Amino acid sequence: MEPAKVDRIFQALGDPTRRAILDALSRQPSSVSDLARPLDMSLAAVVQHIQALEESGLVRTEKQGRVRTCHLMPETFATAERWLSERRTLWERRLDRLGALLDEEENG
Amino acid sequence: MEPAKVDRIFQALGDPTRRAILDALSRQPSSVSDLARPLDMSLAAVVQHIQALEESGLVRTEKQGRVRTCHLMPETFATAERWLSERRTLWERRLDRLGALLDEEENG
Repeated sequence: MEPAKVDRIFQALGDPTRRAILDALSRQPSSVSDLARPLDMSLAAVVQHIQALEESGLVRTEKQGRVRTCHLMPETFATAERWLSERRTLWERRLDRLGALLDEEENG
Repeated sequence: MEPAKVDRIFQALGDPTRRAILDALSRQPSSVSDLARPLDMSLAAVVQHIQALEESGLVRTEKQGRVRTCHLMPETFATAERWLSERRTLWERRLDRLGALLDEEENG
């Protein structure tokens, strides 16, 4: 996954309003104004959050006539999970190797 | 995982400098000045990044004499992975249920 993509996904997940929008979209695809209704902020602010979510790939939007409908994209979560898990595995392996090296030095 | 914790972990992962610091720490625990050396920014900026990483639980720091040493905490990655995977599973289930409901309406 390219670094800019990693940035965008994790920045989107690190914001409580964006997570609330994702949760709402997991119940059903929704228009921007439906998403805005329970949120205590301007429509312009909601649109910005949705744009950030769309750039991250966590949400896809589709314009039909005058209504823009937002859909959740669960695949992108799977990509982020894979990134995290690969990274953790690599990092744990490195730290284990370092631990083994230090043990050798102490005992050797 | 409490929402503020989710915020802090994903905000930490959404920043390329913080990811570079995590990668460096997976090679070995390091002092703040060692971490700062390859980074093109002030020591104060590096300290801020490290504080954010420490608040997220991805890094632990320890002061021995005059040197503060930073360590990677792989467990926190595992927590973030679990959060993502639980969320994705819940959301996929909801969307599947919605899909089934819409099929029924179309066919019933």
